[in-house]
Amino acid sequence: MQPINISEKFKLFNEHWTPKKIGELNGQQVLLAKIKGEFIWHSHENEDELFFVLKGSLKIEFREKSIILNEGEMYIIPKGVEHKPIAKEEVHVMLFEPLAIKHTGNITSNLTVNTFESI
Amino acid sequence: MQPINISEKFKLFNEHWTPKKIGELNGQQVLLAKIKGEFIWHSHENEDELFFVLKGSLKIEFREKSIILNEGEMYIIPKGVEHKPIAKEEVHVMLFEPLAIKHTGNITSNLTVNTFESI
Repeated sequence: MQPINISEKFKLFNEHWTPKKIGELNGQQVLLAKIKGEFIWHSHENEDELFFVLKGSLKIEFREKSIILNEGEMYIIPKGVEHKPIAKEEVHVMLFEPLAIKHTGNITSNLTVNTFESI
Repeated sequence: MQPINISEKFKLFNEHWTPKKIGELNGQQVLLAKIKGEFIWHSHENEDELFFVLKGSLKIEFREKSIILNEGEMYIIPKGVEHKPIAKEEVHVMLFEPLAIKHTGNITSNLTVNTFESI
């Protein structure tokens, strides 16, 4: 395996809301995503999900509050917690989560990706 | 929980080779470490280990080769693979690995930390 250069990986795709897999370890995966606009409300019944913002400013709405994650900030969303990511301008984010996770939980929308492409 | 600001977390400690825990999810942990100098040869029998360099340039020696990880680069060391991190100048690194991991595997040295402090 070669070192994984995050900036180079982000150059390989431009779609929004389609996480790309850059690594696997211990039943978990490391994903990169470009996001812009509003995602859908969803939760992951059995999986905690880590968001690490590498570029831009990401708002995550919860039912009771919302948070802003700026570049260099991360947040762990506990399993079962409904959330809705929103990015006014394009955000680059790294995600850590189990291999078994479903993109939009038990909800299916036109944004749902069934398999995360490896890059 | 509040957003975790990585730069702020790095200001909270100065020791080398003593990973600090900043989050847990799905039986895994996210650690930050400042490292400088040579670590010891070791492996983790059952755990893959992710190194993500946030500042500086990290050399990781393996028995058959070595790699350099620069800022913004990551590498996943598969379980069982002996490795030895070396940092000429101080490096800031994020680690992602199972909660059950032992710092120096089955080896104990004066660098071994038995419990990772949460910050």
